[in-house]
Amino acid sequence: MGKNKISKSDPTVFGTSENTETLRWNSGELFLLDQTKLPLVVVEEKQESVEQVWHSIKQLKVRGAPAIGVAAAYGLLIGIREQTALNLKEFLWEIENKAAYLESARPTAVNLKWALIRMLECSKTYSGNDSRGLFKQLEEEAILIHEEDVQLCQRIGVNGVSLIKEGMGVLTHCNAGALATTGIGTATAPMYLAHENGVQFCVYADETRPLLQGARLTSWELNKAGLDVTLLTDNMVAHIMSQDLIDLVITGTDRVAANGDVANKIGTHGVAVLARHFGIPFYVACPYSTIDLNTGEGKDIVIEEREAEEVLNFGKRRTTPEEMKVRNPAFDVTPHELVTGLITEKGIIRAPFAENLLKEYL
Amino acid sequence: MGKNKISKSDPTVFGTSENTETLRWNSGELFLLDQTKLPLVVVEEKQESVEQVWHSIKQLKVRGAPAIGVAAAYGLLIGIREQTALNLKEFLWEIENKAAYLESARPTAVNLKWALIRMLECSKTYSGNDSRGLFKQLEEEAILIHEEDVQLCQRIGVNGVSLIKEGMGVLTHCNAGALATTGIGTATAPMYLAHENGVQFCVYADETRPLLQGARLTSWELNKAGLDVTLLTDNMVAHIMSQDLIDLVITGTDRVAANGDVANKIGTHGVAVLARHFGIPFYVACPYSTIDLNTGEGKDIVIEEREAEEVLNFGKRRTTPEEMKVRNPAFDVTPHELVTGLITEKGIIRAPFAENLLKEYL
Repeated sequence: MGKNKISKSDPTVFGTSENTETLRWNSGELFLLDQTKLPLVVVEEKQESVEQVWHSIKQLKVRGAPAIGVAAAYGLLIGIREQTALNLKEFLWEIENKAAYLESARPTAVNLKWALIRMLECSKTYSGNDSRGLFKQLEEEAILIHEEDVQLCQRIGVNGVSLIKEGMGVLTHCNAGALATTGIGTATAPMYLAHENGVQFCVYADETRPLLQGARLTSWELNKAGLDVTLLTDNMVAHIMSQDLIDLVITGTDRVAANGDVANKIGTHGVAVLARHFGIPFYVACPYSTIDLNTGEGKDIVIEEREAEEVLNFGKRRTTPEEMKVRNPAFDVTPHELVTGLITEKGIIRAPFAENLLKEYL
Repeated sequence: MGKNKISKSDPTVFGTSENTETLRWNSGELFLLDQTKLPLVVVEEKQESVEQVWHSIKQLKVRGAPAIGVAAAYGLLIGIREQTALNLKEFLWEIENKAAYLESARPTAVNLKWALIRMLECSKTYSGNDSRGLFKQLEEEAILIHEEDVQLCQRIGVNGVSLIKEGMGVLTHCNAGALATTGIGTATAPMYLAHENGVQFCVYADETRPLLQGARLTSWELNKAGLDVTLLTDNMVAHIMSQDLIDLVITGTDRVAANGDVANKIGTHGVAVLARHFGIPFYVACPYSTIDLNTGEGKDIVIEEREAEEVLNFGKRRTTPEEMKVRNPAFDVTPHELVTGLITEKGIIRAPFAENLLKEYL
């Protein structure tokens, strides 16, 4: 298999569709689907170095909190695989060094830190004295993190599927789908299971500027799986809700604070306010790997501010005058008061969130 | 002056900046700035036929309710100027025919119909028997409609300027600026006057997908005039409001119903709900030419649904999979309960709107 494998997603592109998995660990090599090129081009990139993994995360080639976590775990292996000749002490230092480096890629999604901490703690439990043996133990841990992520998505799907009833319109934001995880997604998990169960419902995906994860990723993966999906611009949500077309909102999240405040892709807070205004339940699909009990409330979550170019352009086409000031917060915080429930792998957690999150996760 | 005059708006384009007026009537010729090309290219187009004017309106080369009205009045002249050899009865029939044709260009903005009805009623008051004389009378009426529009903007500015106080953040949506009118705009009128008066304040413009009037038009004209403007994606509004950066919202409108319900660019309803949620006053700048007492309430207003391509692409670049379903309502309706006040040429009209609109305008 060549380093870069071009695949066809649409008949209008080229070749035949091959691997569309978010990421793959195969014979000690890490392959990441380049999500910046979707939906017109489906291509994965073999990650040759930990620097490449860092850039893949930073540039959103791989994105979505769970996917970032799994990618980082494997990325750490990439960063240390050439160092197994070091003695154990020096090897452990390399592991910490590379983990800290990977963690610096993006600040908001807690899964990144969570996965790296798991890898670090795993390294501390190693009882041997051979760096190659420690590498193997870490590889097993990364694979465990990966497999667990798949299961977390499945369980979120099972716990949320009954929310989706016949004839409903379900709104989602950004991409919290298969592309954001290594399984069937978080927000999309109940959708995929309901669809498998033969429930007829519509999904509305808002396109999610500036990087259009809703248009390019969500509409692509849901459409490919045969779900009924309609694309909206972000500003259409109130109108569509006012027409009684939306019965349920499910989004993903990048970090849930101890009080239930939810950090997610910019625009989520607005969707939650609108859902409350129109009397529509607003659920957040959330594996435990995205819950951060060390962060008390939403205002303590670091909101990544990204480059102005993402707003000033659309694709690569400039839409604004030179020297235009912009804001580009990539996330916002939805206060827990606007959240109907968190769909977790343990079940649906409802208010009071501080109490119930502690009860389930401490 | 050549038929198409290319001008430079940015140093990065070409030539030197010349005419940037929304429209011009000069020696019996109508010139419309092609707003689909802004901000990167500033070019006006001489309207050779009434069909060209219809297409200019349909394709949003000229847009903004007041500008559409004035353009239609002049467009009617273009449509009949070759027919002045007809006898009066046949000429009147031509006038009605061309007016009906122009009215069909777009359904939502009431100014289009309003301006054409004014021209028709003017034609009925003609006391001569010479078609050329009627043409001249109609030309004077079109010029009157144009000059009045300039004055309406100015008076809206004067009536709204005191809303903008030192240090405020003012949010606007779409483009209700000079480019949407033949004067200093409607929503922007108080902003331009406050700026002239030396008030220091910031404007936040949300880009307004799908056609990006906020990014391409509002940010361009405000920036050119030296105002402090920051561009947002539409989905950032809740977050920016939650950071206490917005003290006031002013938008334009395409049609205000008798009960005060406001039809405006898609996304306005959402902004109004968010403003209400965050306790921010929400004003709508509205000349009488946009008030439609014949329409009882918002649900009676026809919402134009435009081509899917506008959502599926941006500037000719495809961002979504083939065969993706979209919605593209170009407007939404903000219920009067969410409106703090209508800034009109007569003053600020507040609730109860049905009663107060009748009082001012019947």
